[in-house]
Amino acid sequence: MEVTLLHNSPLEVVIKAIRKCYASEGKSDSGKSFRGHDDSFKDAKWELGPKDKALIRHIIKSDHTSTLEHLTFSFDIDGLSRAALQELARHRHASLSVKSTRYTLKEIRESEDLEPFLVDTGDVDLDGLSYAQLCDLQALLKVKDVPNDRAKYPLPESFKTSLIWTINARSLRNFLKLRSSKGALWEMRDLAEEVFKLIPNDMKFVFEDYVEGVTDDN
Amino acid sequence: MEVTLLHNSPLEVVIKAIRKCYASEGKSDSGKSFRGHDDSFKDAKWELGPKDKALIRHIIKSDHTSTLEHLTFSFDIDGLSRAALQELARHRHASLSVKSTRYTLKEIRESEDLEPFLVDTGDVDLDGLSYAQLCDLQALLKVKDVPNDRAKYPLPESFKTSLIWTINARSLRNFLKLRSSKGALWEMRDLAEEVFKLIPNDMKFVFEDYVEGVTDDN
Amino acid sequence: MEVTLLHNSPLEVVIKAIRKCYASEGKSDSGKSFRGHDDSFKDAKWELGPKDKALIRHIIKSDHTSTLEHLTFSFDIDGLSRAALQELARHRHASLSVKSTRYTLKEIRESEDLEPFLVDTGDVDLDGLSYAQLCDLQALLKVKDVPNDRAKYPLPESFKTSLIWTINARSLRNFLKLRSSKGALWEMRDLAEEVFKLIPNDMKFVFEDYVEGVTDDN
Amino acid sequence: MEVTLLHNSPLEVVIKAIRKCYASEGKSDSGKSFRGHDDSFKDAKWELGPKDKALIRHIIKSDHTSTLEHLTFSFDIDGLSRAALQELARHRHASLSVKSTRYTLKEIRESEDLEPFLVDTGDVDLDGLSYAQLCDLQALLKVKDVPNDRAKYPLPESFKTSLIWTINARSLRNFLKLRSSKGALWEMRDLAEEVFKLIPNDMKFVFEDYVEGVTDDN
Repeated sequence: MEVTLLHNSPLEVVIKAIRKCYASEGKSDSGKSFRGHDDSFKDAKWELGPKDKALIRHIIKSDHTSTLEHLTFSFDIDGLSRAALQELARHRHASLSVKSTRYTLKEIRESEDLEPFLVDTGDVDLDGLSYAQLCDLQALLKVKDVPNDRAKYPLPESFKTSLIWTINARSLRNFLKLRSSKGALWEMRDLAEEVFKLIPNDMKFVFEDYVEGVTDDN
Repeated sequence: MEVTLLHNSPLEVVIKAIRKCYASEGKSDSGKSFRGHDDSFKDAKWELGPKDKALIRHIIKSDHTSTLEHLTFSFDIDGLSRAALQELARHRHASLSVKSTRYTLKEIRESEDLEPFLVDTGDVDLDGLSYAQLCDLQALLKVKDVPNDRAKYPLPESFKTSLIWTINARSLRNFLKLRSSKGALWEMRDLAEEVFKLIPNDMKFVFEDYVEGVTDDN
Repeated sequence: MEVTLLHNSPLEVVIKAIRKCYASEGKSDSGKSFRGHDDSFKDAKWELGPKDKALIRHIIKSDHTSTLEHLTFSFDIDGLSRAALQELARHRHASLSVKSTRYTLKEIRESEDLEPFLVDTGDVDLDGLSYAQLCDLQALLKVKDVPNDRAKYPLPESFKTSLIWTINARSLRNFLKLRSSKGALWEMRDLAEEVFKLIPNDMKFVFEDYVEGVTDDN
Repeated sequence: MEVTLLHNSPLEVVIKAIRKCYASEGKSDSGKSFRGHDDSFKDAKWELGPKDKALIRHIIKSDHTSTLEHLTFSFDIDGLSRAALQELARHRHASLSVKSTRYTLKEIRESEDLEPFLVDTGDVDLDGLSYAQLCDLQALLKVKDVPNDRAKYPLPESFKTSLIWTINARSLRNFLKLRSSKGALWEMRDLAEEVFKLIPNDMKFVFEDYVEGVTDDN
């Protein structure tokens, strides 16, 4: 699995939002303030101040996390199994754009090496079953013209997919809590770990109370 | 696939809601009015009047369908493939409770006949591939102790699942529109057809502008 | 404020949903099982069994409350202030159909007694201010033809509105938790109390861990 | 009313998402491609290519707009009336952080000039009513200690509020469609116009099919 952070919005919007509720904009101690789209990311020496950081920790502790919805992340997730996609899609407060199976089937038909299309479970026998199945499917598709909408049914759930995933920090906290726990599917734990690693270091504190067992070696 | 309608709320709530917006409760021409939970379903001779029916058609035509959210349906869907579940789960304005794969794997281990566990695509070769895969997986699980969280990876997408699905009429209209169209996955078309059939006859008009090709033979 | 429960779906759907996840349908100890729309509410002697009740308590304790989304409630809420509507509308996982101000302004113009249009705060001076304002507005509207879209701007926030509100049990738990707490707006506390009272007695246990201070005198 | 665009995510994420679905990443004709968070906004000469622009237009035309959810905007909206906030809050696919009335009441108590606290409707008589009401409320609060939770009830709906609003492009299209139409509340039309003006010029085409009457004089 390969995960890339494509974009995240700045933490400043969250601070603005919290301070808006309490009408305490003047008490912000973060660096050069935010002045809109065009100039904000080029020259500004923005740095999170200790008072503002404490404020975010406060709203997290008191569970007033709706202000965290202003912070959004977009990830490119490549090589997740269809089995794990079933679980990822159940997080309804997020946006998914997933590679169509129509195109993936085209790739199977044409490929000489099928191994890269499958997620490795670590069990050689299980992985062997998935591989044999994919080879048998390819062999069939080479000799028989079957519509994609039916041809995808024998695909093993270990088959890899690829997607763009956008989620806000409030939902991401929930995702990390559920999917980094010991009861979670191992592949989802791996995904949670990758996602957490990619969160910019100065934003990690927004999520750290939720991540059991996920180590940050950045 | 076997679909059952477990429950739906009454159309009266929608009429109440529309007439609330326009403060026109007095103009309702439906039968004996709604008097709360306890007595409403036992004796009431409630029947949709022509003015109220026209009113619902009007809000549909003018796309003010938020009032349709008060009408909810709960279905028991049994025997849908994991392939189709991928698509069903993408309708985020709905609630799903899905049979855990942990339990389904237990059933595979113990079963003598594996055919009923698979959705039939109508293509004997594809179905043969799925069946062989499931038999091979069963054979492996009989001799090797593999945790369920890994054992499920070689499962073919044709593997059947089972779920309870609750959706409101506004989202259901969107579901029926998308999933009854010619471009939809054949199994989703079948599901859309089953779902539409199960909608009580006196509520079908709420959905009929959206259903292409779905015939109602009730 | 007058609140009526228009409809709720049956608890059986929730039990079906939980037992579906664990494939434990056979272990249900509730009365005569659910057999679809037509015959379920007429003759069935359905009664929640102790094992099923314990199961619901278990999923609540372990915070797996997505299955509670299958249980929906529709309320008719009459006489809530526009001030409280601001807060109610912020619960985004619910459906609201609210009386249009266009129609309420028509009623002001024509009414001889304006007191019933205002929520009483219990402070005679504040209520006097609201009343005087409404009288002044009426007097103006009698001599000047102002479009409703502007005429509503001087209305006091104590002005009453009316709505149909549909919410599922998971969101309702969140609503009751937040709005029955001591920090909540007094009118929202009143609403939470009314709503809780109207929940059928055999379903109240689904919500009781959340309701601080709300007494059930049913 | 003063509206500022605090942040928007880049259009590249949308193009990535669409091309992901169709596995056509290689056909993108936009400038220097996106390489993650750190370096993407500093030096890259990113420019939307004609093929990618046509692709976005295509998904809009064919109503496959879920990929637009990856594009998010955060606005600071200052000086919106509480009347208009009622309507804004009904767009549930968006995040709002609103100035608490507790703090606004503090400001009323202390202020010498109350006019800036009110939205001007253009009708001198209506505005006079709102102003007189606010003066009377201030006078009362100076001599009587009333809790804020009750003191806010006589406030006129023309009273200004302030908020941070984050919304994705799919929901924003729906907002602009509804709120720029002739039937919309005049203040919401003004808001829609301000919001549309602030959308970066090279993204305006994503919204232009929806905006009736909103002129772009940028």
